[in-house]
Amino acid sequence: MENTVYNFSAGPAMLPVDVMQQAQAEFCNFNNLGVSVMELSHRSQDFISVATQAEQDLRDLMHIPDNYKVLFLQGGGRGQFAALALNLMGKNAKADYIVTGQWSKSAIAEAEKVGQVRALDGFVKAENEQGPRALATEWDLDPNAAFVHYCINETVDGIEYPFIPETGDVPLVADMSSTILSRPVDVTKFGLIYAGAQKNIGPSGLAVVIVRDDLLDQAFPNTPAIMDYAALAKADSMLNTPPTYAWYLAGLVFKWLKRQGGLTVMGERNKAKADLLYNYVDASDFYSNSVHPEARSWMNIPFQLKDDSLNEAFLAQAKAAGLVALKGHRLVGGMRASVYNAMPIEGVQALVDFMDKFAKQQG
Amino acid sequence: MENTVYNFSAGPAMLPVDVMQQAQAEFCNFNNLGVSVMELSHRSQDFISVATQAEQDLRDLMHIPDNYKVLFLQGGGRGQFAALALNLMGKNAKADYIVTGQWSKSAIAEAEKVGQVRALDGFVKAENEQGPRALATEWDLDPNAAFVHYCINETVDGIEYPFIPETGDVPLVADMSSTILSRPVDVTKFGLIYAGAQKNIGPSGLAVVIVRDDLLDQAFPNTPAIMDYAALAKADSMLNTPPTYAWYLAGLVFKWLKRQGGLTVMGERNKAKADLLYNYVDASDFYSNSVHPEARSWMNIPFQLKDDSLNEAFLAQAKAAGLVALKGHRLVGGMRASVYNAMPIEGVQALVDFMDKFAKQQG
Repeated sequence: MENTVYNFSAGPAMLPVDVMQQAQAEFCNFNNLGVSVMELSHRSQDFISVATQAEQDLRDLMHIPDNYKVLFLQGGGRGQFAALALNLMGKNAKADYIVTGQWSKSAIAEAEKVGQVRALDGFVKAENEQGPRALATEWDLDPNAAFVHYCINETVDGIEYPFIPETGDVPLVADMSSTILSRPVDVTKFGLIYAGAQKNIGPSGLAVVIVRDDLLDQAFPNTPAIMDYAALAKADSMLNTPPTYAWYLAGLVFKWLKRQGGLTVMGERNKAKADLLYNYVDASDFYSNSVHPEARSWMNIPFQLKDDSLNEAFLAQAKAAGLVALKGHRLVGGMRASVYNAMPIEGVQALVDFMDKFAKQQG
Repeated sequence: MENTVYNFSAGPAMLPVDVMQQAQAEFCNFNNLGVSVMELSHRSQDFISVATQAEQDLRDLMHIPDNYKVLFLQGGGRGQFAALALNLMGKNAKADYIVTGQWSKSAIAEAEKVGQVRALDGFVKAENEQGPRALATEWDLDPNAAFVHYCINETVDGIEYPFIPETGDVPLVADMSSTILSRPVDVTKFGLIYAGAQKNIGPSGLAVVIVRDDLLDQAFPNTPAIMDYAALAKADSMLNTPPTYAWYLAGLVFKWLKRQGGLTVMGERNKAKADLLYNYVDASDFYSNSVHPEARSWMNIPFQLKDDSLNEAFLAQAKAAGLVALKGHRLVGGMRASVYNAMPIEGVQALVDFMDKFAKQQG
């Protein structure tokens, strides 16, 4: 490859260059064993060392207390939409779901199959009808709900919570798929955190679940084994063959995050990246972002061109300049730059430079 | 790597050397896109081409008729134990399961969560009490069962069906995890075939389901979306983010199988490999295999040393000779050589040579 490509895919997303280079170098011969890590039995000590080290590094990065289990599972975020409801609603089959966009809605669709769900608006009324809506900070919560669910970062809409909702004694469950590891978070505020890997953790095909011990005794008895958190926790996520290669890559990403200085450093970098792009968009009369300033995602930054008929030209020229996967989600249109941990600020600067050039050329 | 290592892991298992070398070469730069295939959006045309080509190659290899859907899913074989029951038992919540070993028993455990299961002995009585039991060819089947399930190859026990059970009008469902693609099979005899990938298809974290169209309208309404075959089929297995890298690797394996000459050639090779090892074991008074000759697996060949106290020495010396992952399953003990498609006959010959040397040294 001669020229740098910056990949703004929302997921599966780019992985850190260092991680990819290490994985490539040892692809066919891991630890001088003469075989690939993906050719190791998950029951072998060689793979178990990979798996336990990855878990420990994630625990270190997120300061996960000992009374939380960490699971490495299959099925993606959508699999966890079903699994978390099957696991947490067994004693009290009702839950409150805060709705902020596409993913919180999709989570409800799965939960409704096993219990009673109340959908709560995640936004307050806009000050004027056209204006962006701010995130709500209070809801009419049911104190007897099994849990309250929210999606911290709506990948499609580019909406992210800068605060943790207060839910009293009701366990808080968070879909952290597209923001996990992007900045420090207080795990003790949550009953359960889950995330599909393919944004900030590793490749697709892996999901991470962080669940407080006391929530592991209330699954419906007919929960499929691959969704039964208690059984999976007891088996160290190896009740069945786990996605070993994805788990290994996640471990490399965790090591990389530690080398960067951990989540405080990543948070500073991610804020700087987001500020760079939002500030440019806000100062421009060619591009716009319609999300409320206090609800803007650091990870997924949608923006619109002033004229949709220019979208194709924008995408084609961006690609030619090495800036790929910028097309917005079909539900939102326009553009979306996903700038997860692995995206360096140089990539965001290159995007801003290109946007400016394109605007001047078209303007 | 200086010396060849032959990896007899039961799964995750070795992949073809050619496949691994190609994957390594293009690991960071797929199709000159400047990004890895695992960094592509599953919605991108670049990945969709990979996905559809893999499906077509599998259809070609197995001669899968057009009235069957092919799905690329997560959750492994154990996930499909649950999914197939949720999908097929919705209209008539009872099924017959033929039991031949560990995996057919595990399949029942999941099916019992959603319906009524009858477990049918898969063996006939032995001619003498110590002798090996032959596979049954007839069972007391329920003509009103939603389906009959069997496991074609019991990985743990080394038992494989050389014939397809006759089930009349009742759809036949097969766990083909550890034997799929190892020889030709008549897909039209089956209502549903499923397989975890980590033996003969690719890395762990992927399962393939081949299902006849008319069986797609009877799922329980509360089936989790990631297990709902009809919804997954409608979305071309992209209802949620699929395990893209595993899918890509499976595609490389399918291309490799085509280059080898397809499943007839693979069947001949696999028979020759199995014959080589079984013939040696049968002629030896140091090693033994207790499976009925007509039920012996071509893929997983367990064997016992005449003295279990020699097991550790055998494993250590084998490893030093580049023959790894030979330890038998904990439920069976002894040794097990898994010789899936990717294992060349040279590896089996090297194993036999080593076994002979070890026996003479200890004998």
